[in-house]
Amino acid sequence: MLLRVNMKEGKITDEQLNNELQRIGGRALTSHVVSQEVNPNCDPLSGENKIIFAVGPFAGTNLTCSGRLSIGAKSPLTGGIKESNAGGTTGHKIARLGYRGIIVEEKPEKGLYNLVIDKDGARLEDAEECRGMNNYELSEKLLQKYPGSALITIGSAGEKELSTACIANLDMDDNPSRMNGRGGLGAVMGTKGLKAIIVNDEGCEREKLTEEYKNWVKELNKVVKEAPTTPTYRDYGTPAMVDVTNALGGLPTYNFSRGKFSEADKINGEYLRDIIEKRGGDGSPSHPCMPGCIIRCSNIYPDEKGETIVAPLEYETIGLLGSNLGIGDLDKIAHLNYICNDVGVDTIEVGAAIGVMMDEDVCEFGDYEKAKELLQEIDKGSLIGRIIGSGALTTGQVFGSKRIPTVKGQSFAAYDPRSIKGLGVTYATSPMGADHTAGNTVRANVDHKDPEPQIDLSKKSQLLSTAIDALGICLFTVGGLGANQKSLVEALNARLGGEKSEEYLRELGEKILLLEKEFNNKAGYSEGADRLPHYMYEEVNPDSNVSFDVDSKKLDEFFDK
Amino acid sequence: MLLRVNMKEGKITDEQLNNELQRIGGRALTSHVVSQEVNPNCDPLSGENKIIFAVGPFAGTNLTCSGRLSIGAKSPLTGGIKESNAGGTTGHKIARLGYRGIIVEEKPEKGLYNLVIDKDGARLEDAEECRGMNNYELSEKLLQKYPGSALITIGSAGEKELSTACIANLDMDDNPSRMNGRGGLGAVMGTKGLKAIIVNDEGCEREKLTEEYKNWVKELNKVVKEAPTTPTYRDYGTPAMVDVTNALGGLPTYNFSRGKFSEADKINGEYLRDIIEKRGGDGSPSHPCMPGCIIRCSNIYPDEKGETIVAPLEYETIGLLGSNLGIGDLDKIAHLNYICNDVGVDTIEVGAAIGVMMDEDVCEFGDYEKAKELLQEIDKGSLIGRIIGSGALTTGQVFGSKRIPTVKGQSFAAYDPRSIKGLGVTYATSPMGADHTAGNTVRANVDHKDPEPQIDLSKKSQLLSTAIDALGICLFTVGGLGANQKSLVEALNARLGGEKSEEYLRELGEKILLLEKEFNNKAGYSEGADRLPHYMYEEVNPDSNVSFDVDSKKLDEFFDK
Repeated sequence: MLLRVNMKEGKITDEQLNNELQRIGGRALTSHVVSQEVNPNCDPLSGENKIIFAVGPFAGTNLTCSGRLSIGAKSPLTGGIKESNAGGTTGHKIARLGYRGIIVEEKPEKGLYNLVIDKDGARLEDAEECRGMNNYELSEKLLQKYPGSALITIGSAGEKELSTACIANLDMDDNPSRMNGRGGLGAVMGTKGLKAIIVNDEGCEREKLTEEYKNWVKELNKVVKEAPTTPTYRDYGTPAMVDVTNALGGLPTYNFSRGKFSEADKINGEYLRDIIEKRGGDGSPSHPCMPGCIIRCSNIYPDEKGETIVAPLEYETIGLLGSNLGIGDLDKIAHLNYICNDVGVDTIEVGAAIGVMMDEDVCEFGDYEKAKELLQEIDKGSLIGRIIGSGALTTGQVFGSKRIPTVKGQSFAAYDPRSIKGLGVTYATSPMGADHTAGNTVRANVDHKDPEPQIDLSKKSQLLSTAIDALGICLFTVGGLGANQKSLVEALNARLGGEKSEEYLRELGEKILLLEKEFNNKAGYSEGADRLPHYMYEEVNPDSNVSFDVDSKKLDEFFDK
Repeated sequence: MLLRVNMKEGKITDEQLNNELQRIGGRALTSHVVSQEVNPNCDPLSGENKIIFAVGPFAGTNLTCSGRLSIGAKSPLTGGIKESNAGGTTGHKIARLGYRGIIVEEKPEKGLYNLVIDKDGARLEDAEECRGMNNYELSEKLLQKYPGSALITIGSAGEKELSTACIANLDMDDNPSRMNGRGGLGAVMGTKGLKAIIVNDEGCEREKLTEEYKNWVKELNKVVKEAPTTPTYRDYGTPAMVDVTNALGGLPTYNFSRGKFSEADKINGEYLRDIIEKRGGDGSPSHPCMPGCIIRCSNIYPDEKGETIVAPLEYETIGLLGSNLGIGDLDKIAHLNYICNDVGVDTIEVGAAIGVMMDEDVCEFGDYEKAKELLQEIDKGSLIGRIIGSGALTTGQVFGSKRIPTVKGQSFAAYDPRSIKGLGVTYATSPMGADHTAGNTVRANVDHKDPEPQIDLSKKSQLLSTAIDALGICLFTVGGLGANQKSLVEALNARLGGEKSEEYLRELGEKILLLEKEFNNKAGYSEGADRLPHYMYEEVNPDSNVSFDVDSKKLDEFFDK
């Protein structure tokens, strides 16, 4: 079922899923609804935009990592279509309440509301007493009133409708730290007058699963458990990537002007694990973000007393708020991360924004106190806070930067696209703007500096990632499921009926990407927008000795069949 | 001939004109060179961009109003192709030195330079002593050293590479007030390390004109003199437009939220003329910006003592810095205009930026002192100065405005596109972004609120305006020459040879527009970008009772043959 919430009329209705993409859910559902129902030329912060929360077809079942939450809308950051997904406890609970997705449309005349969904149905409740509250205080308050619930929340950045505003979900310890981070979707939620969605599945009858499905689940869970990538994720989490990208000269350093960081060994996966283990207390180097996760890539990062600073501390944050700012200290990065989580902004985008400022000598690389102060300004709503909160492109424009690491208005993630060119192709061509999750190629066994294989590599990765996002499964399962697509499709057949073939994931990915591409085209983006910022073509990264040299003509042909 | 100046190597060369568009000159030349030589994906503020100064084929002769100066580049404001043209004394002098255009490319490692062109050739001179100087002081200083010259200059905004930076030319009284205003071309000149171009035609031999050409000139000058529009321009100048647009509910008022201004009768053409005549002194209600102008639409606006505040005070400035900000006082508007001219920013763009801020309650409509202070901040390079100096879109993004009156990043001119829908079509479809000179329809005898005739009307106007810009003639001659295109083409044949037919202007306009459109497409704009900001479709202008309702499908087909 779909839940449709009209914020202007306060009207809430149930709808049947009425086509394939809706039945699949996840990114298929969000991009389908945006593409069908949202005017590509609308103002993303107007009542005309819609925000869609969707889970995949396996959510609510015990298939591992299948409870991802996709959120979609027209993005205020890129002006194009956006899907951003996150882990946490929300996805499974939405599914157990019988919903594949929630469509929130229009905006109220005034007021701030919480949407509560439980066994008794869905209702809007006044949330004025939550106004201005940030995520940690807010989630604590809401959990007192709605214990045992999953929460989807925005901090003050979302209320301020800033283009870096993200949307938080609780992890299994009730930390509001599983972020639908990218594209400013928190601002869209803010314009809808929606402070939180409270999802409580207590008292709902558990769905009866077929034996056939349960058998496929058993097989797939085994595949994920035995995947060669799983132990690395478990032991070192995403921060394992620091050593990989640093070795490739692709770790964002000093506003992407370098690719190796002299203090990389103070922010890498091993160092992180050592600190966590040494400090003990609340700390944990391996932690699941949702029930049933076999991989457990997450962590809890404690201070010297063993008390949690932030959970988790992820590679992207370490890259953008750490090496990119010349900050080689995990404690400091963790504190910056906490501020971002609390006020509710994308660590990648604000890290890139501050990096641009440091590059323009507004402040100095490595100046942690200044970075902290700048992030705190976002909550205050000061002029500089609003600028940073508007993202790297706006910040770069205001400060006259010629080195703004963005595509379609969204900042690069923590991979230098010259040193890891497949990600350069993904940044350039993804309808999402620069986004590593749209089609990460860093784990492929190729020469990442060689322009030749990157188009095919990125395309393959984008097609699969898009399908996986549609299925609501964590991308980190791909190390196992990527080579077992037939079993995954069989599980899908067992779950939804039908006789889809092994080719289905590729077809599904393509169908969704073309929808998204078409939306962006109507919104004003031509193929000429599928480019990295031009300095990436001209400026050699001194730590990999290459610039970006993938043929632009091939970028234009990326979406041709 | 073409003069090519490489700012990196300090190399200056002469080149032959080698095709039709180059021989025509003006916008044909600038858009041809940008289209042929500039990478559409380059950073407009990098050495890869080029800036082209061009005159039309009649420049240097006594055809009235034929000395317009076109300047072209990839725009830092729109990210697309740009041509902005101005009157003043520069165009004729460039032509008399034997040049149709000057191409400035690359950028120097460091340093600031003046380009001096006179009978002895062209050379770069050190301009460090001019650094940070604004236009009035700068032009005075340069004229002491180079008396009798025309000047092309930038103020501190251009040096700061702000996207609203314009380029100034002297009028006949040596006022640096004839602006190539739009699209931030002053920033491009700034990135080239070029503070001024000094053009001195003294000692150059006057070209011998054929009798045939002279006869056509005589006829065309008569046509312009007798055009029905000429007396209005002469008597009231462009401010005559205040009453026209106010009557239509299309005068930009309070950030384009209204179309009639309660104090319109304090800022209109008649009132302006009365003040000027009453105050006497330096003041003049009718004044030519270039030698040989028959129309004399310009003015000199004096203070109570009869001393010049600014010259001229134009309709666009009155609209954007006056009614749009709720300021109904010509003295105040004149003072704001002076600041803009001095620091060198487009009055339209910064007026729109401050309008957006006032609409967001950052300051109050009508607050002249605040507006003045904000403009002064541009020169200081403060944070708010940089924001406003980056234009209405960036300002709107920072302040979270949902009413940003821009297309392709460039602000509307002083015509509400709902009340005067032909201009709405021009704003939406012009490769220049929102620009009234690209195809003004306000003088057409149609119902401006009726969506039906506007596509054809705008198209016709854009084709002719583009051709007129290419010919280097003032658009205000169109009231006469528009109905005498055959004679104009005959004059062109007499001047350049060939046997072009009456259809030529339309063909020329189309050829240039398609080149420009193609450039923008490669730069990232699809047809979906040919739209007004969406609130214009939804929000009724209460003073004309209409929203913008021209069929978007027709906008998409605008450039189809």
